[in-house]
Amino acid sequence: MSEHSPLDVPEGDPFGPHNLPYGVFTTASGANPRVGVRYGDSVLDTAAVAAAAGSPHAALLAAPTLAPLMAAGRPVWQAVRAEVTAWLTDPAHRAAAEPHLHRLDGVTLHMPFDVGDYVDFYSSEHHAGNVGRIFRPGEEPLTPNWKHLPIGYHGRAGTVVPSGTPVVRPAGQRKPAADPAAAQPSPARPGPVFGPSVRLDIEAEVGFVVGVPSPMGTPVPRAAFRDHVFGVCLVNDWSARDIQPWEQRPLGPHQAKSFATSIARWITPLDALDAARVAPPERTHPLLPYLDDTGADEESHGYDLRLEVRINGEAVSRPPFATMYWTAAQQLAHMTVNGASVRTGDLYASGTVSGPEPDQVGSLLELTKGEGPWLADGDTVVIDGWAPGPNGTRIALADVAGRVKPNPAG
Amino acid sequence: MSEHSPLDVPEGDPFGPHNLPYGVFTTASGANPRVGVRYGDSVLDTAAVAAAAGSPHAALLAAPTLAPLMAAGRPVWQAVRAEVTAWLTDPAHRAAAEPHLHRLDGVTLHMPFDVGDYVDFYSSEHHAGNVGRIFRPGEEPLTPNWKHLPIGYHGRAGTVVPSGTPVVRPAGQRKPAADPAAAQPSPARPGPVFGPSVRLDIEAEVGFVVGVPSPMGTPVPRAAFRDHVFGVCLVNDWSARDIQPWEQRPLGPHQAKSFATSIARWITPLDALDAARVAPPERTHPLLPYLDDTGADEESHGYDLRLEVRINGEAVSRPPFATMYWTAAQQLAHMTVNGASVRTGDLYASGTVSGPEPDQVGSLLELTKGEGPWLADGDTVVIDGWAPGPNGTRIALADVAGRVKPNPAG
Repeated sequence: MSEHSPLDVPEGDPFGPHNLPYGVFTTASGANPRVGVRYGDSVLDTAAVAAAAGSPHAALLAAPTLAPLMAAGRPVWQAVRAEVTAWLTDPAHRAAAEPHLHRLDGVTLHMPFDVGDYVDFYSSEHHAGNVGRIFRPGEEPLTPNWKHLPIGYHGRAGTVVPSGTPVVRPAGQRKPAADPAAAQPSPARPGPVFGPSVRLDIEAEVGFVVGVPSPMGTPVPRAAFRDHVFGVCLVNDWSARDIQPWEQRPLGPHQAKSFATSIARWITPLDALDAARVAPPERTHPLLPYLDDTGADEESHGYDLRLEVRINGEAVSRPPFATMYWTAAQQLAHMTVNGASVRTGDLYASGTVSGPEPDQVGSLLELTKGEGPWLADGDTVVIDGWAPGPNGTRIALADVAGRVKPNPAG
Repeated sequence: MSEHSPLDVPEGDPFGPHNLPYGVFTTASGANPRVGVRYGDSVLDTAAVAAAAGSPHAALLAAPTLAPLMAAGRPVWQAVRAEVTAWLTDPAHRAAAEPHLHRLDGVTLHMPFDVGDYVDFYSSEHHAGNVGRIFRPGEEPLTPNWKHLPIGYHGRAGTVVPSGTPVVRPAGQRKPAADPAAAQPSPARPGPVFGPSVRLDIEAEVGFVVGVPSPMGTPVPRAAFRDHVFGVCLVNDWSARDIQPWEQRPLGPHQAKSFATSIARWITPLDALDAARVAPPERTHPLLPYLDDTGADEESHGYDLRLEVRINGEAVSRPPFATMYWTAAQQLAHMTVNGASVRTGDLYASGTVSGPEPDQVGSLLELTKGEGPWLADGDTVVIDGWAPGPNGTRIALADVAGRVKPNPAG
């Protein structure tokens, strides 16, 4: 073993042995994309190590996407994680693993899986309240259903892109003037205008990646959450705040969101976040049984994830995921309670993560109380985060980054 | 050639030589799924004929899904259609084709392509008006944006199923009593109830299947509609009318729709519908340039498709697609004008097709003015349709059928 082995990750490194997120990578060698695990500032070529070690999981790890591993189920996830941990930390295996570590800056990271359906929830009470006050002034900030079900809607899966992909400012329709009381326009009343969005925004979210599918007609109960969900990734659900209010009645957001959604290139296994599990906020309203997580023997499905939003390098907000009202287990139960199936590669996001404090909100809409400034061309947005790990360690959540490119129509 | 050749399709058969829809089928032989073309009451094994004939398109037709053919683009679509027409109708080819015709009742039809993103529009003025009057009494039936953009939202791609798949009655939340003015419920105010939907409905729609993808950041103009869209299929967008009004504020329908959407197993090429092209209804409001189809040199992108809805064999409605306000070309332009891409296999549906007359509406919601009766367990719904073909012929649209199964929770 060399003197400065990349296996010697400093103690306290948030990409240390308790983290081990999965991605898909290539090197300059021209070999096929395969599954890698991030360790410190390196990427372990798990396909190569597994093949050399005769691992029963070598084929899963040689795939050009995480999908086969994701579909394999929790016992396999745990077995592979144990193998990778041994390769990286067990003196009996380290010498064999070391030649298969690549410097992070020498590899290309790819989209880690093909997204099936993408559902975006709306599960922060603080966010929903803030948005309600801005978009529907004079009404109750939360709609009457909000405390009874995790509101969510389908987004566009085909425009989910990996971190670092530039985001072109969308163009679209917006109302010429805010007139919430306006009835059906007539030719005599001015119509909407068209152009590049002038209120481009972010939404800092946490995404949950479905591994094990469920058949149609069979709801997935909360207790099966960790049997189906493979891991998490940070999400930026880019949003055009001028397009959104004009288009979204009565069927919800469409063009304001469908132009791009960015996800991190590393998926953190749920097992890496065990130490971060926390109880969700107190339930203020009685819940129907499929959602009621107040029982004494209920597992905690909240997660203490600490997000940070940086624009052009400056931290503007630190959204606390632990404050989310609805958990990912409740969201999965709700998504399937009507008989809808989930597939390997389905992605569902938490909704914008906003805490109670002004510097804990996950959108510029809230940060600026609807007044802006909004994103300018050339702005770079980075969302990253961390979670408590075992024994006082930290588990880093890989960042999701994107730079705004001007709309070609100017 | 035998005396009663399946090639001798009766004159006027709506699956005759001007139709030629595509599907994916297997026979009892155990051979792989491959592309078939419906002709009369038979299915032509295009993969076998193409291989025997040395067609340059043999590989596309041997695929287990329509996706490679769909992605190949309009010149290939036209070339393949010309080949298939020759195989079926040219005396020089018929003898070679005849052994590769299978009786329709002897084959299994499969899901013809994997759905990428599924977008559901809301483009019938009559439907939107009817629904507005029922769901938002006392307000303007059309929201202020309706005449300015084709309203649409993303549905669940993973639960799009082929015709004949049973549909399990969904369960979900509904409000205990209609109280549109109710503010945020409190523990003292009764919450929602849960159970199998008691207002299960249909929506008769026409789906458009994207063949040629478009890159992110590049809108698809109306004029490129027929370069991207491969064909059409009838759609039943099953809907739970008790779940929908409770859940859909503010982000749109989710559980009320995501449990199942049925599509026909045959995709009708756009080229088969040339004789059915008609001008859309008069535009009552000025349109932004990317949607404005009133120019003198604009191609007509309306289609004179005549739908019929039958419940347990009884015709209950005949929705006229020609009355749709927004065309599929406008919908595609709108879907991409913000920079969103489309992919091979994306499906977008028209929205419920409803004409001006009471017996022309595409949902039970409208047919019964919101009062029911709704679908009962065991009910079978069939939507089919036809379009004018060349020289007075008819082009059948393959039916989309489904039977309601009881919810297992009773």
